[in-house]
Amino acid sequence: MEASEERAATPARGVRRGPVTLRTIAELAGVHVTTVSRVLAPPAQAVRTSSPETAQRIREIAAELGYRADPHGRALRTNRSRLVGVLVPRLADLVLATIYEGIEDAAGRSGYSTFVTNSQDDVERRADRTDMLLARRVDGVILGDAPVDGSSLTRLVERGTPYVLVSRRSPGHPSVTCDDVTGGRLVAEHLLELGHRDVAVVAGEPYTSTGLDRTGGFLAAFAAAGFPVPAHRVRTSGFDVPGGRAAAELLFAHGTLPTAVFAVNDFAAIGVMGAVRDRGLTVGRDVSVAGFNDVPLAAELPVALTTVRSPMHEMGRRGFALLLARLEGREVSSELLTPQLLARASTGPAPR
Amino acid sequence: MEASEERAATPARGVRRGPVTLRTIAELAGVHVTTVSRVLAPPAQAVRTSSPETAQRIREIAAELGYRADPHGRALRTNRSRLVGVLVPRLADLVLATIYEGIEDAAGRSGYSTFVTNSQDDVERRADRTDMLLARRVDGVILGDAPVDGSSLTRLVERGTPYVLVSRRSPGHPSVTCDDVTGGRLVAEHLLELGHRDVAVVAGEPYTSTGLDRTGGFLAAFAAAGFPVPAHRVRTSGFDVPGGRAAAELLFAHGTLPTAVFAVNDFAAIGVMGAVRDRGLTVGRDVSVAGFNDVPLAAELPVALTTVRSPMHEMGRRGFALLLARLEGREVSSELLTPQLLARASTGPAPR
Repeated sequence: MEASEERAATPARGVRRGPVTLRTIAELAGVHVTTVSRVLAPPAQAVRTSSPETAQRIREIAAELGYRADPHGRALRTNRSRLVGVLVPRLADLVLATIYEGIEDAAGRSGYSTFVTNSQDDVERRADRTDMLLARRVDGVILGDAPVDGSSLTRLVERGTPYVLVSRRSPGHPSVTCDDVTGGRLVAEHLLELGHRDVAVVAGEPYTSTGLDRTGGFLAAFAAAGFPVPAHRVRTSGFDVPGGRAAAELLFAHGTLPTAVFAVNDFAAIGVMGAVRDRGLTVGRDVSVAGFNDVPLAAELPVALTTVRSPMHEMGRRGFALLLARLEGREVSSELLTPQLLARASTGPAPR
Repeated sequence: MEASEERAATPARGVRRGPVTLRTIAELAGVHVTTVSRVLAPPAQAVRTSSPETAQRIREIAAELGYRADPHGRALRTNRSRLVGVLVPRLADLVLATIYEGIEDAAGRSGYSTFVTNSQDDVERRADRTDMLLARRVDGVILGDAPVDGSSLTRLVERGTPYVLVSRRSPGHPSVTCDDVTGGRLVAEHLLELGHRDVAVVAGEPYTSTGLDRTGGFLAAFAAAGFPVPAHRVRTSGFDVPGGRAAAELLFAHGTLPTAVFAVNDFAAIGVMGAVRDRGLTVGRDVSVAGFNDVPLAAELPVALTTVRSPMHEMGRRGFALLLARLEGREVSSELLTPQLLARASTGPAPR
């Protein structure tokens, strides 16, 4: 059937069978649905962003289609996707996967779905993935991959998209993280008690608060005890087994070995254990090794790993709760969760 | 501004500013956009599912709005979300997280986004999560959590949603998996060569092809060599550290210990290592332990873990390629990827 001018002149209300939605009006007006929502919002919600001409056009179309605002405002929420985007460096990092499980659990209980993607801590990929999340119309974003300088957050701040940081904090942005400075200090105090004076740090990525805070807390405690750790005993690393292994190889390549190594991540600590083992030495006797996070396998390793438990699942749940508070327009403040030292066989008295 | 009968009589084309989309027509007709797509499809694509009345109404609305089908069919694809849903048991399972990374990589290169969610191998949650994915209008689904009986796939089959299985296969459904039977056999041959005759299996979940195939391949090889493994030496388990630990405790609780344990998952194997350690025994000398998957930490453990490498990342990439083939209407067949044995310190000669 072809269009004819006669048929086209049939009134819109004559052919409409479905309910009139904000989206229908938006498409007819050629504007975004949020614009329609703002224009047709009840008086309490002021019209902020539309030109008077656009607002007028939207009202006309709504009137023509017989649109009536839901008195309870339900229709006004049709632009809510109830979808939350989550950015993590890598899901294959068990720490982030566990935090994500906490997010997903809390989101599910509030009727939200979550959408997770890997940024691989790559600047371009992170921007690309953020755009992808926004294109999917997420209501808010939870970031597990924020650099400490907050440089990746500009886009979200500019767009006014609510967001919350987990795992890694950045000053001035709302976050739920472990008290990593305290965690690092707990490891230092444990090693000091065992008599270690010549220690090394596998310090994580230098653009992350997790790496910086855990290392900082550790170094501050050793310095305060009168045993400052020299710079060559501190090496940045990836937060994974190969990263820890590579950093340990650099630390062990020259001069004497330290009597203990603090790796700011359990997987990096396992990489350190491999480097110790391959020198014919025994972890916990010849060289003590401590990690961070208490992933489930830490306790079961052939030499059980001393580590700091960070409440990963809880962090995810509270991160979502904080985002929900932001979505509801409430004031929020950042949260620091309490770490706990777990002393196991991988740390022993310093060899004489 | 209030609606009035006069204003409402203004023709639809008079107020339309945006492009006429299939969705606009669908909303005006009160039908799903796919119905509109089918009705307005070019002659090559037959109208199959609409009543003559509905089809007529859609054509009339399209004509009134001046809708013209894109000659290249582009408009007909507006109901493609370019979004693929992925179901995994747990993202905190590194094996599945790595497979997912492969899926995400391949999807990104083809302009698709992926949406991953955890089913936790729970029947109700799996159905709920599948519905959630479908509600998000995914073009297809990749399942990393299929039970071997295919019972979770009914919904997808009935809806005609294209899907592919990874990690776990189910007869009659397209999948990309490791050749797990061969993998189990490789471990058996390795232990037989080392002189082990009294062995045990930590067998994984009994509703999974990974558990069944790896265990089956292992048991078949021992039986063929003349050393059938008695039933009490085989225990089901979770695919994680606590699951392996619990199964090992059951296996070790009564009578003599086996000289070697094959766990069908590396994390379960680490749980077995913990149980051996806590009996004052040494892994690889007193009790040999082998795993499956070769997760990155396997090689770095204080006692490096003998395991079977399954190509996890490749599995994800090929799984997405298979789904893409299905989305493009091509015929596909299941793929088995080749496993590789990696002998390390955790398996040694059988004690006399």
